[in-house]
Amino acid sequence: MANLYCMATLTKPTVAVLGLGLIGGSLALKAQSLGYDVRGFSRDPDTRAAANDAGIGTADSQDELLQQLPDHALVVLAAPLEPVLEMLPKVLDQTPESVTVTDVVSVKSPLRDAAARTPHAHRFVGAHPMAGTSESGFHAARVDLLDSARWVLTLDRRTDLTRWAQVAQIVTATTGQITPASSDAHDRSVAWISHLPHILAETLAIGSDWQPALGLGAGSFRDATRVASTRPELVEAIIAGNPHLDATLGNYIEQLMQARELLRTGDVAGLLTDGHQARRRWEQIKDEALDQGQVIVHLDAPDAAERLIAIGTTGGYVVSCTTARATALVFEPEK
Amino acid sequence: MANLYCMATLTKPTVAVLGLGLIGGSLALKAQSLGYDVRGFSRDPDTRAAANDAGIGTADSQDELLQQLPDHALVVLAAPLEPVLEMLPKVLDQTPESVTVTDVVSVKSPLRDAAARTPHAHRFVGAHPMAGTSESGFHAARVDLLDSARWVLTLDRRTDLTRWAQVAQIVTATTGQITPASSDAHDRSVAWISHLPHILAETLAIGSDWQPALGLGAGSFRDATRVASTRPELVEAIIAGNPHLDATLGNYIEQLMQARELLRTGDVAGLLTDGHQARRRWEQIKDEALDQGQVIVHLDAPDAAERLIAIGTTGGYVVSCTTARATALVFEPEK
Repeated sequence: MANLYCMATLTKPTVAVLGLGLIGGSLALKAQSLGYDVRGFSRDPDTRAAANDAGIGTADSQDELLQQLPDHALVVLAAPLEPVLEMLPKVLDQTPESVTVTDVVSVKSPLRDAAARTPHAHRFVGAHPMAGTSESGFHAARVDLLDSARWVLTLDRRTDLTRWAQVAQIVTATTGQITPASSDAHDRSVAWISHLPHILAETLAIGSDWQPALGLGAGSFRDATRVASTRPELVEAIIAGNPHLDATLGNYIEQLMQARELLRTGDVAGLLTDGHQARRRWEQIKDEALDQGQVIVHLDAPDAAERLIAIGTTGGYVVSCTTARATALVFEPEK
Repeated sequence: MANLYCMATLTKPTVAVLGLGLIGGSLALKAQSLGYDVRGFSRDPDTRAAANDAGIGTADSQDELLQQLPDHALVVLAAPLEPVLEMLPKVLDQTPESVTVTDVVSVKSPLRDAAARTPHAHRFVGAHPMAGTSESGFHAARVDLLDSARWVLTLDRRTDLTRWAQVAQIVTATTGQITPASSDAHDRSVAWISHLPHILAETLAIGSDWQPALGLGAGSFRDATRVASTRPELVEAIIAGNPHLDATLGNYIEQLMQARELLRTGDVAGLLTDGHQARRRWEQIKDEALDQGQVIVHLDAPDAAERLIAIGTTGGYVVSCTTARATALVFEPEK
């Protein structure tokens, strides 16, 4: 495994970006600026023209782009969930064995499942750059948008760790750090930390029986509804398709009912203490991220995938990855 | 009515502050700095000594302070809900008819009810300064803590508008602006905009099934759990005793269940649009507060109380109040 992509590593692989919106466009601009061979495609001729003006070579059709890919290229499906679900099996079918396919969609298990229904599941590595997305379109793309972004790269049963390392190498070389996680762990986590808070914010903003004016002074209301400022189409694109959100919302409703019971019986102190401590723990992980130990994970070790997932679970992340030597440089919290 | 407190207005009334913690202490310091005759009391001798050092005259006992009050004094009960519920009937009993009693507790209807069980309900005006309270104690009090704070002054069936105006005059002269509201409207509003968000934040922080590390990049989680950083004792003091919180939480759970159903059937777009528009309306009220029309409300008009409440409901607020002329200068949103 160690030398499989050695040539690709030395020459920088071709990166083909299908979809040149905010994320795809920014990734293309960044890879381009670092000397990667970047090839883009957008269904929109104006976007293709704008990408050309920005120095990104584009093909006139997706088929043409895929047919002309060199060996060991990386194809990035940079579109929302629904189109990517359609594109993924086709692109896997249309490209040679050495080509790896990734994506930037904010839910991961539906794509893992879509790949699993093809004979090419090992050639897919799911990715989710957790970057701000309040705008959209190539005109909003910036060469530095993804700088220092935290990505999740999925590690599932069928994931080929060599290809995972190839994607990780490009991600860390061009933009940010990587939290390794399984697709299900990713989706459950974002259901709780992102999709659920969106639902809570919308529902709270709508309100029912209050004077808006009184909310002016309430920082708790301001913060709790902030993400409802996001355009509704964008919120729908973010939360739609997460198969774990229904169970997460049910779980949360259950916990609110318990909180209501505690309020009724005057026993709410324990809940408030637990909530306070949980938030503090989160703040500590955030602060400790600045002060962590550096370790090297050998990707050809038999437990490399488990090791990477364990590191992600405890707050560690991959800062660089070298496929030529099959190693990932990882920061993990000090014991 | 117009001249009842004319003398008091010209000479500035005596302000007696029972409880010299963060809010009571800050209010005492501010009134003192503006030349009011301020008299304080705290059960804690060290706090009394510290207040004396800061130039605030203190009595050795609450009874002594109350017995020596001049006519038309204002007594501020600056303690948490439970002690204020005990103090209120006693203080009303112990002070002469011309003395008005107010408070700074974050729920209002239990105090309205406590006053209503005495023959002195007309002498009580509930108040809630919506100011930051992440610290506590006289050592944290600052002369400018309440500057520009938004207060709610309650207007209920038994409220005496002349006394309401006296409290409003002191509040606007010393610190901030006033949203007029009934005690029930206040409690329902803060249940939704403050107490409920606290419960949501605690419950969300505790979580259930997610990798904390993945939350690092999620601004929605950071904002939605921020108030869980507040000390649990303080949160309990804020939310405890609001008789409307149980119904509010039940109402919210109901709305979350509806949201879950909409997610299941793929019809969530309407909810997201409504939530977005509601948050935008709130932002507009906030911005328009800078650009409002100025009107004068004549407090001896028969519909003055209704007029003030209507102004509060639509985002207006009282900026100054003159008991000598029985008028309130009010900003209200332009039609």
